[in-house]
Amino acid sequence: MTTPLEGLATIVGPGNMLTDPTDMAPYLIEERGLYRSSAQAVVRPGSTAEVAAVVQICAEAKIAMVPQGGRTGLCGGAVPAGLDRAIVIATERMDRIRVLDPVDFTMTVEAGCVLASLQAAADEAGCLFPLSLAAEGSCRIGGNIATNAGGTNVLRYGSTRDLVLGLEIVLPDGRVWNGLKSLRKDNTGYALNQLFIGSEGTLGIVTAAVLKLYPRPTERQTALIGLPDSQAALTLLGQARRASGDAVTACELMSRLALDLAVRHIPGLRDPLGTPSPWVLLLELSSSRPGGLREALESVLSQALEDGTAQDAVLAESGTQRQALWRLRESIPEAQKHEGGSIKHDISVSTSRVPELIERASAAVADALPGARPVAFGHIGDGNIHFNVSQPEGADKNAFLDEWPRLNRVVHDIVMGMGGSISAEHGIGRLKAAELARIKPDLDIELMRRIKTAFDPDGLMNPGAVLIP
Amino acid sequence: MTTPLEGLATIVGPGNMLTDPTDMAPYLIEERGLYRSSAQAVVRPGSTAEVAAVVQICAEAKIAMVPQGGRTGLCGGAVPAGLDRAIVIATERMDRIRVLDPVDFTMTVEAGCVLASLQAAADEAGCLFPLSLAAEGSCRIGGNIATNAGGTNVLRYGSTRDLVLGLEIVLPDGRVWNGLKSLRKDNTGYALNQLFIGSEGTLGIVTAAVLKLYPRPTERQTALIGLPDSQAALTLLGQARRASGDAVTACELMSRLALDLAVRHIPGLRDPLGTPSPWVLLLELSSSRPGGLREALESVLSQALEDGTAQDAVLAESGTQRQALWRLRESIPEAQKHEGGSIKHDISVSTSRVPELIERASAAVADALPGARPVAFGHIGDGNIHFNVSQPEGADKNAFLDEWPRLNRVVHDIVMGMGGSISAEHGIGRLKAAELARIKPDLDIELMRRIKTAFDPDGLMNPGAVLIP
Repeated sequence: MTTPLEGLATIVGPGNMLTDPTDMAPYLIEERGLYRSSAQAVVRPGSTAEVAAVVQICAEAKIAMVPQGGRTGLCGGAVPAGLDRAIVIATERMDRIRVLDPVDFTMTVEAGCVLASLQAAADEAGCLFPLSLAAEGSCRIGGNIATNAGGTNVLRYGSTRDLVLGLEIVLPDGRVWNGLKSLRKDNTGYALNQLFIGSEGTLGIVTAAVLKLYPRPTERQTALIGLPDSQAALTLLGQARRASGDAVTACELMSRLALDLAVRHIPGLRDPLGTPSPWVLLLELSSSRPGGLREALESVLSQALEDGTAQDAVLAESGTQRQALWRLRESIPEAQKHEGGSIKHDISVSTSRVPELIERASAAVADALPGARPVAFGHIGDGNIHFNVSQPEGADKNAFLDEWPRLNRVVHDIVMGMGGSISAEHGIGRLKAAELARIKPDLDIELMRRIKTAFDPDGLMNPGAVLIP
Repeated sequence: MTTPLEGLATIVGPGNMLTDPTDMAPYLIEERGLYRSSAQAVVRPGSTAEVAAVVQICAEAKIAMVPQGGRTGLCGGAVPAGLDRAIVIATERMDRIRVLDPVDFTMTVEAGCVLASLQAAADEAGCLFPLSLAAEGSCRIGGNIATNAGGTNVLRYGSTRDLVLGLEIVLPDGRVWNGLKSLRKDNTGYALNQLFIGSEGTLGIVTAAVLKLYPRPTERQTALIGLPDSQAALTLLGQARRASGDAVTACELMSRLALDLAVRHIPGLRDPLGTPSPWVLLLELSSSRPGGLREALESVLSQALEDGTAQDAVLAESGTQRQALWRLRESIPEAQKHEGGSIKHDISVSTSRVPELIERASAAVADALPGARPVAFGHIGDGNIHFNVSQPEGADKNAFLDEWPRLNRVVHDIVMGMGGSISAEHGIGRLKAAELARIKPDLDIELMRRIKTAFDPDGLMNPGAVLIP
């Protein structure tokens, strides 16, 4: 009689079954260092059939499984923290593009493909795969799908959910569900695909997907715009969407403090705007239609400067200038590290209520932790703000970070009161599972538990993520 | 002790509770006349609270419920056929637009709103609600959501699923689930919203929804194009998507026979093309960006005429001409009625495989029913063809229609072999429930049943639709 571990080694081959703590260590690292994990083994299957066989053995032996992609998630969903002797199932070896069909505008890919490699393959075929986020150089598409990843192009192309046409899933009992279809329309029963997307590996393991492609943009126009208030960002966004034929592909808001911190701490950055306006907007338009985008953006901006919606604006005149504008936005989290502790919020509300959210949350933070400095920035076009709070100047970092749960509560209660979300794009994982249980209505949790039980009655698939067992 | 019916009358008021067969008759009519239904009562609640109270009484008394919108579905999902003494719950009185927010680009509406009234409200606010289909003058948004309705704008804007941000649902036990959020990003657990969309009233009743709006197009260009083969439609579509910045909002293919039947039977129609090409494409581009769309379309067409992708083309020069082109496409089902019986298929495959599908299905039909005439037309840009088969000339209509199940099988087996769908946009309802059970893998049916049981353990919500009890 073979043991489960012997069985796993037979399936994936001894070289792809790690049990030595040193070998396993890289697979147990969590992006933010919030969790310490241990595992019985890390297995690296090379095919869907191997994943299925691995899961079948674990299911029969009632061993908890943690699916793992690029380990770039920010909520601890991909590491076996708090679990006793779980098996990590890493998809990294499954990194083939099975088909890329530019006529169908789709590609069929395996779960372990790195996001940037998919963007590159699409580009080579004259197409665009629009999912784009900070971790794109190492995150893997299976993880993007499991967490319904967002990023900077959601405004125009939607979240990962909107980019997935079909899925192949290994279910918690090891059977393979084949929903790997390239269909733009399919109304034959319940949307099983949709249920797996964003379920963070708690209902099954994504092994492959059919993804939507788009025409590759041939023109791109980027502007940095100084604004008198955050409301002006929404006015400008609406005008730019209309004037450009809905070609706005990024709309990123930064508070003056957020921008100043980036310029202060990150070498080589400078603020190209002459006016120190309280808010700054990075607006980007792109289209595969040749010509006309620059004129559309200029016309919106000149009108906005005239009527006071904008106080100042610069347009990128080259790819280098465009990158410099983007670096201002992308450097904010790094810059915050130089200011001591930062308590983070990944929140969303109706797009039209973002200004109200920022105002109310800032006031509540000032009340709760005098001197703490809200650094608001993010995807205002999606109603999604990374409302990160830097510690008071000169305060003790650890004492400040101890306030994380209390400050989260203060901010999340405002968000929930506004019908918003406490995890707009990063998911729940282990980090927010308790907070989810606190803020979601009991009925939501009950329905989610019923689904979990229907798919994974033994609770073996990524236990502790999303739902507290 | 009051009876359930007395309880229902108290909730909705005697005037909104129908039990007389004559009063109920309009609510039992099924679009195609395929079903005869009877019901214990038809209730017309005026609010979500009334729907909840009605459902609670039915759930306690174990009475089957059939949610009903505009009764325009083509698969019998909204009538209580084959049910013993069910209650029809008609949402028609719930027809308020609760909020329309042009800054947020959303509207919050009740389930009973007629689709055309939502389109009009969006238009008045300078926005577009893109869902558009033949029944838009009488179908209701709750039904559109329950069936994940498709239509002519899916290519650019997606199906109903892609247009819904939030839902309010009365669950099978009468509790109200509040997912009525206007969030572009929300990664807090399983996608419950998505599960209800397209579940055809078998998991709960849609009472309200938050819908996405888009900038209202200011320019629209429409062309009718003669093609040498159906493959050319895909070539042209790709070129037009690229040249226009993805502004192609309709791409409708018609076979020569389909077009000829429309011209022959529908008064006032004429074929504006000089060349009797074997295939004809209706291509429409629209955008809120002023100018440039005509030039983009003309450039694609002149190139296509030069390289033989197109044989002939006309561009609409006015709104009247545009409507005339659209009437050719929209008259095809009506024209088919003049040719006797028509056996219908609402099928989809990968967009790039539509030509192969048409070829294989046509050959199989010729084999199975010599003389029967495939009339292929539809949304080629979505891979969705209404492959309708007209009877052989001079054949007996009823004898031909008796072949419906056999011909469906022939065509559906080809579709399934190509990884396609046997109901691309019309849903399953009662009409295709048996066929669904035949063609879906057992695992799909099992997973769907587990979900059904998790949400509706007593099987009271629209029994017989989608899944055979």
